[in-house]
Amino acid sequence: MEETFVPFRGIKNDLNGRLMCYKQDWTGGFKAGFRILAPTTYIFFASAIPVISFGEQLDRSTDGVLTAVQTLASTALCGIIHSIIGGQPLLILGVAEPTVIMYTFMFKFAKDRPDLGSKLFLAWTGWVCVWTAILLFLLAVLGACSIINRFTRIAGELFGLLIAMLFMQEAIKGLVEEFRIPERENPNSIEFQPSWRFSNGMFALVLSFALLLTALRSRKARSWRYGSGSLRGFIADYGVPLMVVVWTAISYLPARSVPKGIPRRLFSPNPWSPGAYENWTVIKDMLNVPVLYIIGAFIPATMIAVLYYFDHSVASQLAQQKEFNLRKPPSFHYDLLLLGFMVILCGLIGIPPSNGVIPQSPMHTKSLATLKHQLLRNRLVATARKCMRNNASLGQVYGSMQEAYQQMQTPLIYQEPSARGLKELKDSTIQMASSTGNINAPVDESTFDVEKEIDDLLPVEVKEQRLSNLLQAMMVGGCVAAMPFLKKIPTSVLWGYFAFMAIESLPGNQFWERILLLFTAPSRRYKVLEEYHATFVETVPFKTIAIFTIFQTAYLLVCFGITWVPIAGVLFPLMIMLLVPVRQYILPKFFKAAHLQDLDAAEYEEAPALSFNLATDGEMGRTASFADDGEILDGIVTRSRGEIRRMCSLKLTSCTATPSKEFRSLQSPRLSDGVHSPRISELRGEQSPRLGGRGPFSPRTGEPRPSNLGKGG
Amino acid sequence: MEETFVPFRGIKNDLNGRLMCYKQDWTGGFKAGFRILAPTTYIFFASAIPVISFGEQLDRSTDGVLTAVQTLASTALCGIIHSIIGGQPLLILGVAEPTVIMYTFMFKFAKDRPDLGSKLFLAWTGWVCVWTAILLFLLAVLGACSIINRFTRIAGELFGLLIAMLFMQEAIKGLVEEFRIPERENPNSIEFQPSWRFSNGMFALVLSFALLLTALRSRKARSWRYGSGSLRGFIADYGVPLMVVVWTAISYLPARSVPKGIPRRLFSPNPWSPGAYENWTVIKDMLNVPVLYIIGAFIPATMIAVLYYFDHSVASQLAQQKEFNLRKPPSFHYDLLLLGFMVILCGLIGIPPSNGVIPQSPMHTKSLATLKHQLLRNRLVATARKCMRNNASLGQVYGSMQEAYQQMQTPLIYQEPSARGLKELKDSTIQMASSTGNINAPVDESTFDVEKEIDDLLPVEVKEQRLSNLLQAMMVGGCVAAMPFLKKIPTSVLWGYFAFMAIESLPGNQFWERILLLFTAPSRRYKVLEEYHATFVETVPFKTIAIFTIFQTAYLLVCFGITWVPIAGVLFPLMIMLLVPVRQYILPKFFKAAHLQDLDAAEYEEAPALSFNLATDGEMGRTASFADDGEILDGIVTRSRGEIRRMCSLKLTSCTATPSKEFRSLQSPRLSDGVHSPRISELRGEQSPRLGGRGPFSPRTGEPRPSNLGKGG
Repeated sequence: MEETFVPFRGIKNDLNGRLMCYKQDWTGGFKAGFRILAPTTYIFFASAIPVISFGEQLDRSTDGVLTAVQTLASTALCGIIHSIIGGQPLLILGVAEPTVIMYTFMFKFAKDRPDLGSKLFLAWTGWVCVWTAILLFLLAVLGACSIINRFTRIAGELFGLLIAMLFMQEAIKGLVEEFRIPERENPNSIEFQPSWRFSNGMFALVLSFALLLTALRSRKARSWRYGSGSLRGFIADYGVPLMVVVWTAISYLPARSVPKGIPRRLFSPNPWSPGAYENWTVIKDMLNVPVLYIIGAFIPATMIAVLYYFDHSVASQLAQQKEFNLRKPPSFHYDLLLLGFMVILCGLIGIPPSNGVIPQSPMHTKSLATLKHQLLRNRLVATARKCMRNNASLGQVYGSMQEAYQQMQTPLIYQEPSARGLKELKDSTIQMASSTGNINAPVDESTFDVEKEIDDLLPVEVKEQRLSNLLQAMMVGGCVAAMPFLKKIPTSVLWGYFAFMAIESLPGNQFWERILLLFTAPSRRYKVLEEYHATFVETVPFKTIAIFTIFQTAYLLVCFGITWVPIAGVLFPLMIMLLVPVRQYILPKFFKAAHLQDLDAAEYEEAPALSFNLATDGEMGRTASFADDGEILDGIVTRSRGEIRRMCSLKLTSCTATPSKEFRSLQSPRLSDGVHSPRISELRGEQSPRLGGRGPFSPRTGEPRPSNLGKGG
Repeated sequence: MEETFVPFRGIKNDLNGRLMCYKQDWTGGFKAGFRILAPTTYIFFASAIPVISFGEQLDRSTDGVLTAVQTLASTALCGIIHSIIGGQPLLILGVAEPTVIMYTFMFKFAKDRPDLGSKLFLAWTGWVCVWTAILLFLLAVLGACSIINRFTRIAGELFGLLIAMLFMQEAIKGLVEEFRIPERENPNSIEFQPSWRFSNGMFALVLSFALLLTALRSRKARSWRYGSGSLRGFIADYGVPLMVVVWTAISYLPARSVPKGIPRRLFSPNPWSPGAYENWTVIKDMLNVPVLYIIGAFIPATMIAVLYYFDHSVASQLAQQKEFNLRKPPSFHYDLLLLGFMVILCGLIGIPPSNGVIPQSPMHTKSLATLKHQLLRNRLVATARKCMRNNASLGQVYGSMQEAYQQMQTPLIYQEPSARGLKELKDSTIQMASSTGNINAPVDESTFDVEKEIDDLLPVEVKEQRLSNLLQAMMVGGCVAAMPFLKKIPTSVLWGYFAFMAIESLPGNQFWERILLLFTAPSRRYKVLEEYHATFVETVPFKTIAIFTIFQTAYLLVCFGITWVPIAGVLFPLMIMLLVPVRQYILPKFFKAAHLQDLDAAEYEEAPALSFNLATDGEMGRTASFADDGEILDGIVTRSRGEIRRMCSLKLTSCTATPSKEFRSLQSPRLSDGVHSPRISELRGEQSPRLGGRGPFSPRTGEPRPSNLGKGG
């Protein structure tokens, strides 16, 4: 993505790029068949559950003016609009915590003014939304999203971890609340007697931990050893929603021996109860708002605009990280413009606006990577089996697999077909075939494990389409009607789910992995090397990694502390944006350029000849210096859980960058066996890598050295 | 062990064997230093907690005539006697569930007789003990234990699994009870109100699962990646007791908001409260028992004698399984004789007698294997490091390690020194050294990972001594004094601990592993092959394994069903003894001899030339046909958790026995790489094997093919 501030140019580029693949966005989705339901359901739950919880929060803090009905409506409406006419369909929209905090603040402000009051509150927020939208239009038109390029891994991952911390905080707070008497409730009712309160708290502990543990387990089902493949696949795909249902059902088991209200369940008015839908006609009241307040609405609007500009772009960036090998272009400017329109729309019908959310957006991309992998895999396995039945040789089997793979590639209309990438895949398969055995001898399944081979061959690819996003948004909309059922979910299951989301977002986050590395016993660091790991583990001295990580952690804690400040806390993104100049001007004074490059590559530090164009970024990765040496081959794998890891072939003998002496000395001599080292890292992990490549033979994007760290998009 | 029925010969053999290593039994224990406390504490908890719980059970069913004070006293007294003058010091004694059931039955019987009553109950049980002891003397003198040889793996493992099921049943029953009003309590007290009962149940769920999960985790601490080595070692050694303490402390957290009695805690009178020690003078009343009852006492006595004969011998056998490579002789006959004396002693002082217990006895041996490994390892690492500082070559390093290893061997006074075994270790280290690199070049730690090499080299060895048994028995005795502290442990923690014991006893049980194999998806069976696995996995067709396992499972369920029969249920061991003729005469009609040999080797089926002498069994393994081929090398490893697994090097190309076609076809071609296959199995596991050998280089017992399955003892 070029850094352009010429008005409208960013939007035009985005529109051009996305229009070219618009048709394929739909056909691709429908071609996936019913399997698209797996990522859809997964994301639907990840999207709906927090929105309902935030809705409840709003309900309490706005005296019932806004409820879960409104937050669900906003999420569904914006989601549907975005999935149909939005730019990047991987981006998931929803009402987020900062929005809730801002609306809470605004309600408190409005309630105390006699000429505004809670009656004109929604009308006033309508004006806030209008101002916010105007600011967003300006930002979009002037190309403010260009600077997202400067937003490097250090900032993105810090933000991701901060969101995980906030989700975990919410889970813990929620659990503690289960032991207390909730506000707005009659403290004299039977379920708030000390004994029943304690019962409720303990029951909540049981339910939330049960949900958390079973949900985490079920995501790993694909690597289970027991049960048939289809059952394991089903559990991995639908296990998390299933567990919400199962634990909700279990929460009814002691219904006879406990009073109603234990365990506590979601609270929300039905959408058809009086007062739950008054907001829709708010536009009528907007002109009744005193002029002073219309102008004053500009102040909260700037805060919301900054927040949305930041959140929306970062969520989009994290959904398009380089590791995913996306083939379709990003659309930052156009999406911000569209967000502006949606903010106005929400304001006029009196519902809180939605914006791009973390961690749901990256979760969406990850689940689509798993889907694409399954589709490819099934096709290739079928092809290979068919070939083997005809007594084909290994070469022929690979040939036909190659053909099938080619047929399933996303056609890249807006750029020349990536023949190069396919050719490389072919080369590497042939190369592998010859290394495995006689390429011309007939093979059968006893000597050739089709499924394993294919798992090893397949690159990370994402099923980029609009259908899953549209469907999940429609399902969120359906929640409004299904409110009577949703109200059966115990709040404690919700807290467990929040913790689950926080934990699910950690793997693949290099910042998190560096924190873990700090706590890894020196004698065990060799284990990190034997698994998939990022480049920096080998090229940067441990001390440097430690200092960098401690700095980042301190920064994270400051940001986390800021979120506790009553209102200004909403603006914690400004703190994170401050990381951009810190990274650009201050960090290079303390760290060597090469180390910084490996820990946090920044585009502006690259050689000018390699200036990046985001639109052809994926292609770049494919064309540049791939075949040079397998040694600096950086890959990524989506493991069976769906997380993304980077893998670097072990390079012990000819490390080009400053080698980390601490790590090298920990390598046992037998690991230095050049040919086998990639296999070692493959063999060591409990879960065998799924979408992974295999070192020298990997068909995946080898990237030029300086660009191997994610710069979003 | 020869099958001799000449009176006293068995006892004489046992005494001769054990007397020769008696001094070493003590010196060896003291030489281990404070590290002996790790297995001691581990076994102390495993021994004391069930005994306390059984004591509580007795307390309830004997109207307080017998309490936890008596069961603890018996366990401590018998444990101390056995550890000092007993034969096999690995055997752990304790009051077991069947004893409790028998005493309950006898109390019910006595209470209803006017001329006996609860007053003369203990005096009458004194007579039962006298008769039991006489029967045990007879069995011991006549060499009844010889037939323990016919008790093969199928029976031993079935028994082990049955005990695990009973422990798990106890845990579940206990947890369910937490939701109910306990007997003997005032149902009107505040803590038995429905709300507090429900609170108590939920709290119990939290505490027991928390204990179970954290205890299981802590046992694996040695393979954790985080924390320093000494911390990890400490947690692995003392984690389980520590968790009991931690969760007991946590159970006091909500003390302010809950009434006393929530959560429920252990109930037992203090030993100094009146009535708690009346039993000691029971001998005075024994002559007051009517003669008819004295004679009638013979009936329960036969049942108890059968039970003890069986339990004591099997517990001893399971503590001395072949996989442990024990170097000291067994002592079945003498131990049974001693048990007779202890039964009389207990009868005369009015406490229920103790006998050898499962799973504590095998747990004891396993924990001592871990200890021995650590001692050897530390010594060798220190030696190797010292050498390397002096710029020694690889050959020199191995040489000095060899020397240190030799110094730490248990001197085998009663047989010629096992020079052969040591020589083999030397050969294999040299062989390995030369395969790793230039044997004469100086090495340093950057190229030579000392700790890893040593872990791979060390064989499974058990620190056989009497100190840990004596200390744990004394600690159990100390519990009587520490009763006020023990009473702080919540009963729910106890249920969690029962579940932990059940789960801890599973790994290494081939029966259990075969059950798991049945549920393993066919496409995942190759994973079993890549890990440590028993011989049968490769040599017996899957269908045969399945039929054998289903038969054994059905038999297990019948035995489990029998335990539910009110009184006769105590005699379930008879059902298990019935397995001996079933195995000897019926099973060979349904299974091929070779398959049966691999699934369940029986001595009586071996070639006569190989007739075994248990006393030199460990030595046999070392001398017989070791160097022939690394291919059928059977090793065992004690993994970091302490469990024992058998490992067989992958033999894909030249399998001598009937190869399992199902398994072979699942091997992917690259696994057939001969030289690397042992490494593959090592690399795959999450926890790297600790006491394991490394295929061709393993210094451990290569055994002649037909004797590779455990025949206990």
